[in-house]
Amino acid sequence: MKNLHLLGFSGSLRRGSFNSALLRAAAELLPEGVALEVLDLSPIPLYNRDVETAGTPEAVQNFKARIAAADALLIATPEYNYSIPGVLKNAIDWASRPPKDTPLSGKPLAIMGASGGGSGTMRAQMHLRHVAVFTNMLPLNKPEVYVTRAAEKFDAQGRLIDEPTRQRVRELLAALRDWTRRLRGETKN
Amino acid sequence: MKNLHLLGFSGSLRRGSFNSALLRAAAELLPEGVALEVLDLSPIPLYNRDVETAGTPEAVQNFKARIAAADALLIATPEYNYSIPGVLKNAIDWASRPPKDTPLSGKPLAIMGASGGGSGTMRAQMHLRHVAVFTNMLPLNKPEVYVTRAAEKFDAQGRLIDEPTRQRVRELLAALRDWTRRLRGETKN
Amino acid sequence: MKNLHLLGFSGSLRRGSFNSALLRAAAELLPEGVALEVLDLSPIPLYNRDVETAGTPEAVQNFKARIAAADALLIATPEYNYSIPGVLKNAIDWASRPPKDTPLSGKPLAIMGASGGGSGTMRAQMHLRHVAVFTNMLPLNKPEVYVTRAAEKFDAQGRLIDEPTRQRVRELLAALRDWTRRLRGETKN
Amino acid sequence: MKNLHLLGFSGSLRRGSFNSALLRAAAELLPEGVALEVLDLSPIPLYNRDVETAGTPEAVQNFKARIAAADALLIATPEYNYSIPGVLKNAIDWASRPPKDTPLSGKPLAIMGASGGGSGTMRAQMHLRHVAVFTNMLPLNKPEVYVTRAAEKFDAQGRLIDEPTRQRVRELLAALRDWTRRLRGETKN
Repeated sequence: MKNLHLLGFSGSLRRGSFNSALLRAAAELLPEGVALEVLDLSPIPLYNRDVETAGTPEAVQNFKARIAAADALLIATPEYNYSIPGVLKNAIDWASRPPKDTPLSGKPLAIMGASGGGSGTMRAQMHLRHVAVFTNMLPLNKPEVYVTRAAEKFDAQGRLIDEPTRQRVRELLAALRDWTRRLRGETKN
Repeated sequence: MKNLHLLGFSGSLRRGSFNSALLRAAAELLPEGVALEVLDLSPIPLYNRDVETAGTPEAVQNFKARIAAADALLIATPEYNYSIPGVLKNAIDWASRPPKDTPLSGKPLAIMGASGGGSGTMRAQMHLRHVAVFTNMLPLNKPEVYVTRAAEKFDAQGRLIDEPTRQRVRELLAALRDWTRRLRGETKN
Repeated sequence: MKNLHLLGFSGSLRRGSFNSALLRAAAELLPEGVALEVLDLSPIPLYNRDVETAGTPEAVQNFKARIAAADALLIATPEYNYSIPGVLKNAIDWASRPPKDTPLSGKPLAIMGASGGGSGTMRAQMHLRHVAVFTNMLPLNKPEVYVTRAAEKFDAQGRLIDEPTRQRVRELLAALRDWTRRLRGETKN
Repeated sequence: MKNLHLLGFSGSLRRGSFNSALLRAAAELLPEGVALEVLDLSPIPLYNRDVETAGTPEAVQNFKARIAAADALLIATPEYNYSIPGVLKNAIDWASRPPKDTPLSGKPLAIMGASGGGSGTMRAQMHLRHVAVFTNMLPLNKPEVYVTRAAEKFDAQGRLIDEPTRQRVRELLAALRDWTRRLRGETKN
């Protein structure tokens, strides 16, 4: 079976983001035959249909092309105000356009998230799953990766040092590989 | 490819229910090679773990066995108070027990719903999709079947007479057949 | 100002329920001038509009009358399958009928919940808040009471022994009293 | 009683936005003693905590100051991908910072939304209500304003010409006035 290429992005733009660090950890925990490309959402402007009509910005064109080229997506989302960050939603809003021709449609998706407190981004992930319905992304149900009390689980360099969490991320990535191959008809369930 | 056996149930217990009528319509609109069994939720008692510990009621045992025997599920849900009916949730709560051994896990699922007003059960279906995450059901994203202003679309005998809605249900059933086969690895995408 | 009378109910019917225990704890933690009546949902049958049309069952009539007589509501909800239990939703479905004349409308509401794991019923509470919109209940935003790892916080007799949780419940009840009085126009904010 | 000052903003940045047009309509439909200031979200940059730490951008400072000065908020939200637009969520993410000192806290809120299709932004409004819990905004339950098939309800100049919708907006604004005064303790319920 051919290797799989994942595209990952984080819903937080700050340098020290736990969610961006979680994506970097994922890059170390990939199963064999799986590669992860991480894309930075910061160049993507605020969505405005007038701008889109005048010509899709280059950063958005690139984002959509990288999604189209990926076999599956890996989103690391913070939880802001009991939902996904505006930054993440805005990037998805661009990528979802036009609805008939979005590269998101049909993409296998794994979701993970880290929070400073005890929610582990549960509520944000629930909203993101609704977004996946309209955009026709195909999210994994399990395992769910809710990283709570993130400050205790990453070191000062932003390296994920909590072994149970590392194992959980490994399982998520293996499940995403299996889900992607299953959806392609490469494996029988 | 072998024939598919669907299990359908409606979240409304009243005799004249539009959602039960929608399930009956589905039985007339099945693609070739697909059969639909409809199960009545009314014998399922209120969930109580003490009762479960003493012995799962026969109606629940039967419900779980019918789910286990089905290749996929078809749920017709009303919207009550912006969520799924207690009756439907209660049946799912029973079927989800115990979590490690629920027959719901891994079942392909199609959702449809009818309402008297303009929502077409949108909000209920969104909640049901969250329920599907925990129980590990695998819902279709598309097509979505939101039957609005149901009184205009069924005749006095509860027959679905609105052709666009009949077509939409046909498409849902065909998509569920394809999704089920795809998840089994019987087809390539 | 006159005393306030709260009506509380739990979404779990089992005898050893943590959520029912949380309600009993609340009864010990009431601010002065506030009383709590706890109602058992187990006599309330599954909702069926044909039954309702033939005559609202006595248990439901009583439930609705107790709601009507209360100054505010206190709901203790488990989380089942990422939503509120069918048992709780079913009771609310009955109480919400008919929509033009439901005793739920305008009632101040406080929500709390206990779970065995780490969610503390976050997702269930989010769904319950949507239910509150349609039924026009007026839920407190803060404080939120999410009791995680409940087995560590109640003793073998079902008494809430975790002091931080007891304090949180105290704060919830005081906030509900203030919210209720504010909504009545008895206090200025 | 003193006059009320509302701050309104739309989740769409395009010039011909139905939601921005709905806000302009609201300005014509205000009850006596109520004024509406409309703020454009386009100058608000993507949220980045590093940027915030270096110094809150002027456009954000202004947004927060306008919120602080308002007696209540009026949000017109499109529905993108079954949730609120990233643009709107991003503005709220900024305004919610820092959580202990956000001007959103305690603000009475009315929500309305317009969509080209049949949803009328129902799902987006449900997500926005979850955002309101964390930020401690106090949303009206009723009336809900779901403007469906917006292209038929606005003329070519973006003027709301559908009288039932105009009436609904009038009712929303009157209800927001009453809700705001009630929360202040200026009226008895």
